[in-house]
Amino acid sequence: MSAERRFTMDTRPSLDQMGLSAGKKARLYRILREHGLRNGTAIFLPYDHGLEHGPRDFSGSPEASNPRNIIRLARDGGFNGVAVQIGLANKFYWDYAGEVPLVLKLNGKTDIPPATDPLSPINASVEDAVRLGADAVGYTLYVGSPAQERDFAQYRRVREDAERFGMPLIVWSYPRGAAIDAKGGRDSFYAVDYAARVASELGADMVKVNFPRPDKQDGVPPAYRGEFSAQQAIEAVVRSASRTLLLVSGGEHAGDEAVLEKARQSMEAGATGLIFGRNVFQRSHDEALRLVAQLRDVLAKHPS
Amino acid sequence: MSAERRFTMDTRPSLDQMGLSAGKKARLYRILREHGLRNGTAIFLPYDHGLEHGPRDFSGSPEASNPRNIIRLARDGGFNGVAVQIGLANKFYWDYAGEVPLVLKLNGKTDIPPATDPLSPINASVEDAVRLGADAVGYTLYVGSPAQERDFAQYRRVREDAERFGMPLIVWSYPRGAAIDAKGGRDSFYAVDYAARVASELGADMVKVNFPRPDKQDGVPPAYRGEFSAQQAIEAVVRSASRTLLLVSGGEHAGDEAVLEKARQSMEAGATGLIFGRNVFQRSHDEALRLVAQLRDVLAKHPS
Amino acid sequence: MSAERRFTMDTRPSLDQMGLSAGKKARLYRILREHGLRNGTAIFLPYDHGLEHGPRDFSGSPEASNPRNIIRLARDGGFNGVAVQIGLANKFYWDYAGEVPLVLKLNGKTDIPPATDPLSPINASVEDAVRLGADAVGYTLYVGSPAQERDFAQYRRVREDAERFGMPLIVWSYPRGAAIDAKGGRDSFYAVDYAARVASELGADMVKVNFPRPDKQDGVPPAYRGEFSAQQAIEAVVRSASRTLLLVSGGEHAGDEAVLEKARQSMEAGATGLIFGRNVFQRSHDEALRLVAQLRDVLAKHPS
Amino acid sequence: MSAERRFTMDTRPSLDQMGLSAGKKARLYRILREHGLRNGTAIFLPYDHGLEHGPRDFSGSPEASNPRNIIRLARDGGFNGVAVQIGLANKFYWDYAGEVPLVLKLNGKTDIPPATDPLSPINASVEDAVRLGADAVGYTLYVGSPAQERDFAQYRRVREDAERFGMPLIVWSYPRGAAIDAKGGRDSFYAVDYAARVASELGADMVKVNFPRPDKQDGVPPAYRGEFSAQQAIEAVVRSASRTLLLVSGGEHAGDEAVLEKARQSMEAGATGLIFGRNVFQRSHDEALRLVAQLRDVLAKHPS
Amino acid sequence: MSAERRFTMDTRPSLDQMGLSAGKKARLYRILREHGLRNGTAIFLPYDHGLEHGPRDFSGSPEASNPRNIIRLARDGGFNGVAVQIGLANKFYWDYAGEVPLVLKLNGKTDIPPATDPLSPINASVEDAVRLGADAVGYTLYVGSPAQERDFAQYRRVREDAERFGMPLIVWSYPRGAAIDAKGGRDSFYAVDYAARVASELGADMVKVNFPRPDKQDGVPPAYRGEFSAQQAIEAVVRSASRTLLLVSGGEHAGDEAVLEKARQSMEAGATGLIFGRNVFQRSHDEALRLVAQLRDVLAKHPS
Repeated sequence: MSAERRFTMDTRPSLDQMGLSAGKKARLYRILREHGLRNGTAIFLPYDHGLEHGPRDFSGSPEASNPRNIIRLARDGGFNGVAVQIGLANKFYWDYAGEVPLVLKLNGKTDIPPATDPLSPINASVEDAVRLGADAVGYTLYVGSPAQERDFAQYRRVREDAERFGMPLIVWSYPRGAAIDAKGGRDSFYAVDYAARVASELGADMVKVNFPRPDKQDGVPPAYRGEFSAQQAIEAVVRSASRTLLLVSGGEHAGDEAVLEKARQSMEAGATGLIFGRNVFQRSHDEALRLVAQLRDVLAKHPS
Repeated sequence: MSAERRFTMDTRPSLDQMGLSAGKKARLYRILREHGLRNGTAIFLPYDHGLEHGPRDFSGSPEASNPRNIIRLARDGGFNGVAVQIGLANKFYWDYAGEVPLVLKLNGKTDIPPATDPLSPINASVEDAVRLGADAVGYTLYVGSPAQERDFAQYRRVREDAERFGMPLIVWSYPRGAAIDAKGGRDSFYAVDYAARVASELGADMVKVNFPRPDKQDGVPPAYRGEFSAQQAIEAVVRSASRTLLLVSGGEHAGDEAVLEKARQSMEAGATGLIFGRNVFQRSHDEALRLVAQLRDVLAKHPS
Repeated sequence: MSAERRFTMDTRPSLDQMGLSAGKKARLYRILREHGLRNGTAIFLPYDHGLEHGPRDFSGSPEASNPRNIIRLARDGGFNGVAVQIGLANKFYWDYAGEVPLVLKLNGKTDIPPATDPLSPINASVEDAVRLGADAVGYTLYVGSPAQERDFAQYRRVREDAERFGMPLIVWSYPRGAAIDAKGGRDSFYAVDYAARVASELGADMVKVNFPRPDKQDGVPPAYRGEFSAQQAIEAVVRSASRTLLLVSGGEHAGDEAVLEKARQSMEAGATGLIFGRNVFQRSHDEALRLVAQLRDVLAKHPS
Repeated sequence: MSAERRFTMDTRPSLDQMGLSAGKKARLYRILREHGLRNGTAIFLPYDHGLEHGPRDFSGSPEASNPRNIIRLARDGGFNGVAVQIGLANKFYWDYAGEVPLVLKLNGKTDIPPATDPLSPINASVEDAVRLGADAVGYTLYVGSPAQERDFAQYRRVREDAERFGMPLIVWSYPRGAAIDAKGGRDSFYAVDYAARVASELGADMVKVNFPRPDKQDGVPPAYRGEFSAQQAIEAVVRSASRTLLLVSGGEHAGDEAVLEKARQSMEAGATGLIFGRNVFQRSHDEALRLVAQLRDVLAKHPS
Repeated sequence: MSAERRFTMDTRPSLDQMGLSAGKKARLYRILREHGLRNGTAIFLPYDHGLEHGPRDFSGSPEASNPRNIIRLARDGGFNGVAVQIGLANKFYWDYAGEVPLVLKLNGKTDIPPATDPLSPINASVEDAVRLGADAVGYTLYVGSPAQERDFAQYRRVREDAERFGMPLIVWSYPRGAAIDAKGGRDSFYAVDYAARVASELGADMVKVNFPRPDKQDGVPPAYRGEFSAQQAIEAVVRSASRTLLLVSGGEHAGDEAVLEKARQSMEAGATGLIFGRNVFQRSHDEALRLVAQLRDVLAKHPS
């Protein structure tokens, strides 16, 4: 137990131990120590669904269609940041500038054309993020996509700019493409573990992954075949992220208990926090705040 | 009724509340408050059909072939702007420079080759628009096109330049491509709603959409299946455009009453105005002015 | 008759009414008022067939293979300009520099590979034209080509440079590609009319088109189906070119009377002039001069 | 009298006759035809005294210290523009963006160090003016300063940028320096006449000069020695400004009748308008509006 | 009393009313609302004396020579920011990155050569500040210096970069030079008032001035001659800074009561805060904290 505790502390790196420049450290400090629980954990509110899926994601909760409501929710709910595309940042962030950290999502696409070789085009620059007073940028990397070459190329410019400006870089590391589908799918332990590692190898400061599914074993490499508990899987993923802070995604709107259990396991494993969109804004305001309060209780047990 | 009125006022943002820079605000003020009805509404006259469709669009009304006639019509008819390609702007705008706002349409293409992966190439720059004394630029974004990656890339440069120069950016947000055809088509409520949102997420100041058709439900996502009135649909589209002023397109030449009814519904829903080309210039001069007068009556009921 | 006369004056714009910069006006003035008939009309001698078709075009008249002969012919025959590629301009224009206006053709290609998506690559710059003392540049635009996106992109740079340097831009506006073939072909009234308009919309100062064939109606849009005389067709094309001076191409070597009739109809319709290559240089020197003299007689009847 | 009238019309050029680009024409049209009296005349409110002289210029009228008050005065008083430095434009123009034309003053200096070789350093760019939605830029040229070489060099960049962006350029053409002092001083007919001409020769669109003093003849060249009436002097200055619109400066706060008489003489001579700062804002609000009303009466008699 | 209160609120602008971009607003919000008293006031600790004066300024308090001590003092004392040169920022800020806001001082010089035409050379860029995660940059402008031309030129680049990156710009606005000495000296009401205004006219977001001395009247312009109380003087200076947040400098180490009285008068007049270096670090740690506590008590009475 105490060994496990120590192990956990090894896997969630502190800002002092990550090889960060002063600017990246200052901005991550603001996110992790001056907002939310101020204890080194984080919960982010991503809100680019209007671009990625279209307004259909807001159909059940019309007030979720208004970005102002969402940014206010992020502020009032004690989130550590809200992630939006450039258009919404330009139009809405001024109202709450500085009150909640901004994560400028730099790339994004619609889900209308079929994504056989998915690539998320760049819509904004790290300099846009600096100009807006953002504390981090986000980039979606489609790990395993046949478009890997173009993806890595545009990612590289983002990483370089993020280093030049001292801007923390959060990678939405998403396994995608036919090869992934043939190897256990996008949520398999194999795919998520690989995605976490790719982000670390390529210089992310934080990485957003889905919670791994060790039961999805069709076509995965031998190392991922066998009995793994969910806890073992997420611990491995945290280790693979080596000095890259790990955020676990909420994914589609799910039941409270399932959501909380994944949160507990992730934090126990050494994750830095959570990034929950639809699970939050597809609820009523009160329901959303109740879930957030429960998630914060989880995070409060894992200071660093 | 008063609640509905309040709703309308919520959805049509004022220039003070859009997060605009001084330059964008000054130019939009000129368009919305110093031309047309000067009440915050707008009606634009687009005139790039000679490039997009060829002179065939002028075949029934030869005087429509002469850009000078059209710009004069825009001025005399109390339009809030006339949108043309660079060649016509270079040749004709000087004659009426400053008398009617110029919207320089930055991209455009012929309809000759089949548009399986439509993309509208850039023909002019935001700097061209500045040089000509334009008050806005226009960009056609083909939402859902397989060429999305290249489209977003060239759009991004336009957005950046528009921000740098304080130039309002109007996006012609057009659902297009095989995937759109398979999901209800370009006029479906789903497609138009998504298109309005994409423009907002990517930083448009105004967005031009077609009037949504909630009856087109073949292949649309579940959220768009069901009974929606035209009024409900256009209200949702206005909401999705969050802080992006919405212009409803007239589309092909149609009967007066149908045109006016769409205009009424749009303005009631919180649209900022209309953008009518063929419905105007494919009529005789007198008929055109009569329709415009009726449209202005509609707009006059919706000041902001 | 007097009404027709007035119509013609409407359609052939004077240099004062074209929205020209001082530099473009000065150079066009030299072409139209200090060479040829000095009456506002023009006849150009294009000579890029060695690149476009190869020396086979000179096989019947060996002296036509020598660019020096052609430039001298342009000078002695009272042409308003000679259009060549950069190599010939560099090698031969010095000899007659200033004696006959130079039109530097900026793009060009061989006809060896099949042209399924034709695009004419750039071989020289507007700055080359300035350096050489040219009075205009020429650009071949393949209207309707699947390569439209790349074509428009490279054309745009030429237009921008031409504006920056005050250099008149003549567009060889050529309908091409499978879609054109399926819609009446490259000489159809529809195709030529569209091509003239595209050049105007995109900022050409002059446009070179083929004489339209209203009889080619297979697959053309409804507006072009019906009984149109050749005169009606060329008049429509001149109108579509709105403030872009129109040059009618001679095309392949044809009989004298047919050539002269097309010239008469074109000038009657308000064209600015003619651009005749093979019809001139594929004749013997004397024959060529005789044809030119007849063409000049036509132009002399249409001063502006 | 009628001859004199004609003479006046000769000397105040219309926008159509000034060789303007479309952008400069559009912006000057807005200034001269869409604000103020809308009759082609103009009255500007300059407000850079806080930089040029320090807050002492506001000591008698504390409300004049607040730029917001001044911009509102410009709007409410029907001025054709307000001229400020970049800092005040950045901070205050947004509030009234588009409601009154902005003239961004690009250079300026304090009057603290002695100005033996006066030069006004550049504080902002034409691109700043574009970004802010300004309709003109202002530049102070110290005609006769020993620093002429550096002054002309930095002015040249401004002129080039103003042309590139279609931005009207107003030159504050101020005779200064020891040589001017030795030749009649800064207000002499000689000095003002020369200053008006320098602005025209170097490409200004408008020029601001002081009212000439033909009585100041010590050291002036022979041509300016003799009996000249004030009217003759200002007429000569307007002529020297050849196709450059002339604005007459109010200078220091003076008595109403003297001010009005200079205004009358200037407009009679063909000036386009007036530029009055201290004479306006160093009065109480009511007094200021009363003077402005009288000046507008003068301008109303000189439409163009 | 309530009227005076209102006056104060007029003169200290809120972040919403300053015409700020989102980035400048976010960073100023962090300084004013997430550090120090979090009530819209500020107290800064400048620490560039080692460059400006040499280590002699630390001679009485050796621990003040260690930048680490000073940055820790700024953090522990609840300062709103610490201002240092690039070398110390590079070496020391990482340790406390994000814990206390960094103001990167961009220019600075030694006091060894005589400063007849003082100019403070640029040692770092706004991009350096971005890279380090700074929340503001500082620039020393020597108002009245004969080197005004070079000073304004280098300042202009800083202002432009600060706007491009959304970085707040604090101007150390220092009257200097022989002309200032001849006009009441650097602390005269005239000089300080002018300096505050120059910063505002040239686009500072905050301005640091010395407390004005209305008794220094030798050579000042007439407007500054007369009986002015210290309170009246500082109120005028705050007004002159129009929409530029005003910081009052502590200057040389002085007695507690004098220091506190100036602080009270400044805050009463509408200043945003204080910037105290030697008065703080030339004391023992305990004494420093005691003075800071007293100053914070003053600031706590003036929330906004």
